[in-house]
Amino acid sequence: MNYKDLYKNILAKRSFLCVGLDSDPALFPPVLKEVENPVYEFNRAIITQTAPYAVAYKLNLAFYEAEGEQGWRQLRMTVDYLKANYPDILIMADAKRGDIGNTAKRYARAFFETLSFDAVTLAPYMGEDSIKPFLQYEGKWAVVLALTSNPGADDFELQRLEDGMPLYEKVIRKTVELGSEDNTMFVIGATRPGKLREIRRYCPHHFFLVPGVGAQGGTIKEVAENGMNDHCGILINASRSIIFADNSTEYALAAGRKAEEMAREMSLYLPEDPSVI
Amino acid sequence: MNYKDLYKNILAKRSFLCVGLDSDPALFPPVLKEVENPVYEFNRAIITQTAPYAVAYKLNLAFYEAEGEQGWRQLRMTVDYLKANYPDILIMADAKRGDIGNTAKRYARAFFETLSFDAVTLAPYMGEDSIKPFLQYEGKWAVVLALTSNPGADDFELQRLEDGMPLYEKVIRKTVELGSEDNTMFVIGATRPGKLREIRRYCPHHFFLVPGVGAQGGTIKEVAENGMNDHCGILINASRSIIFADNSTEYALAAGRKAEEMAREMSLYLPEDPSVI
Repeated sequence: MNYKDLYKNILAKRSFLCVGLDSDPALFPPVLKEVENPVYEFNRAIITQTAPYAVAYKLNLAFYEAEGEQGWRQLRMTVDYLKANYPDILIMADAKRGDIGNTAKRYARAFFETLSFDAVTLAPYMGEDSIKPFLQYEGKWAVVLALTSNPGADDFELQRLEDGMPLYEKVIRKTVELGSEDNTMFVIGATRPGKLREIRRYCPHHFFLVPGVGAQGGTIKEVAENGMNDHCGILINASRSIIFADNSTEYALAAGRKAEEMAREMSLYLPEDPSVI
Repeated sequence: MNYKDLYKNILAKRSFLCVGLDSDPALFPPVLKEVENPVYEFNRAIITQTAPYAVAYKLNLAFYEAEGEQGWRQLRMTVDYLKANYPDILIMADAKRGDIGNTAKRYARAFFETLSFDAVTLAPYMGEDSIKPFLQYEGKWAVVLALTSNPGADDFELQRLEDGMPLYEKVIRKTVELGSEDNTMFVIGATRPGKLREIRRYCPHHFFLVPGVGAQGGTIKEVAENGMNDHCGILINASRSIIFADNSTEYALAAGRKAEEMAREMSLYLPEDPSVI
């Protein structure tokens, strides 16, 4: 999937919503207690109800790894289910991997070949060789951490370098040189809309994956007004506020309603006519 | 395991060798082609022959993840085998995880509870909240990337901040405040022995995990002379040079010989009398 395909899907669904499958069994509704593959069954139900309003799903690896090999099996089952039933939806592994070239190649294989993810999040600390192997796959995406929405962003990401440039800006400028807007995105938190606007000045064309709307304080309005470009250019991620909207047997329907509500707000910022592309 | 226990093992074995189980099936000897759990069988054979000379094993997650859920199963089998047979050996997950607090907690559970690792490598890009959850486990270790041995280290790690301090130094100074020498180590590449000596000035007590000896150009002598402290304080990792020393049916014996050779050199830098502790 290239950026034009992604924009086409955004216009068709009138949404730039990414649903985060942070599927923590400890928070599952009681109805899933006795099920054989609870993580997969939960995901499948959530996907069925939210897919009309979502252009991407992001699977947070930590929640699957915490379940060991059963977690990885259900991760694979979820990705396979998405691929088979929703071929137009972008499937992202929120894995934040980052390692030397030789090892990074194996991570790329893990997510793009062994599993059928379209995109994977990467931590840039180790530099260029930790990112490049992910850019060798046609139609796949490296989603590089730039400025995250957590308090720890102050510790290193926001530190200024000798030339006055903050580290996250150096990361963006360096990474932009490695790939293109067809295979590279950046993670930029919703909690700093002013920074979104600033980043757009030197990174006008790339898609941004934006977490931090809702509980963390960011709003769709601020993100859209400060972060969008001429092909939308943003995916807003919401996880817990959607998937754990309700704990009853109706949990999936509630997730669908929440996703619909977010998409409705997003549609206000998109052009009416899908032929603009 | 605390740092004194680790030093005790180092003195007992007269070695500070960590064997890296970067167990890539594509490089396995032909004798393992028809085996049911080739990664596990390979690891078990390598461990049996190298354990007399190793105080730690480091499992590089990328190579297991590239095999999907079968990889995770054999990862778990390997950790269980080590725990059952070599309780004094430190078992490290080379996973380079790093995420917001809520997610980091799940990664900590994945490696320290679901799997029985003693230590996990972490990427510090996202700051304090990505490290802290790993320090809540008694006897477990957070091994934080500081200055790595790859070319990409120049891109961000070695960049100077406004106050003249390189990023990797900021990472070390910040992280030292969060934990103690009983639960925190740093990854420092062997390829920059001068930096090792410099880092020892402001980080005298912590253990360093040192990759990059051998193929990448670092030597045991340089690392020992520049990086050791009064309780050894270094673990030198070697992966491919040991585990893929030979491709015949004698591969494990060859790995054992290579590990023995490295340990013999390491012993030159350790005190003769194990009662010094």
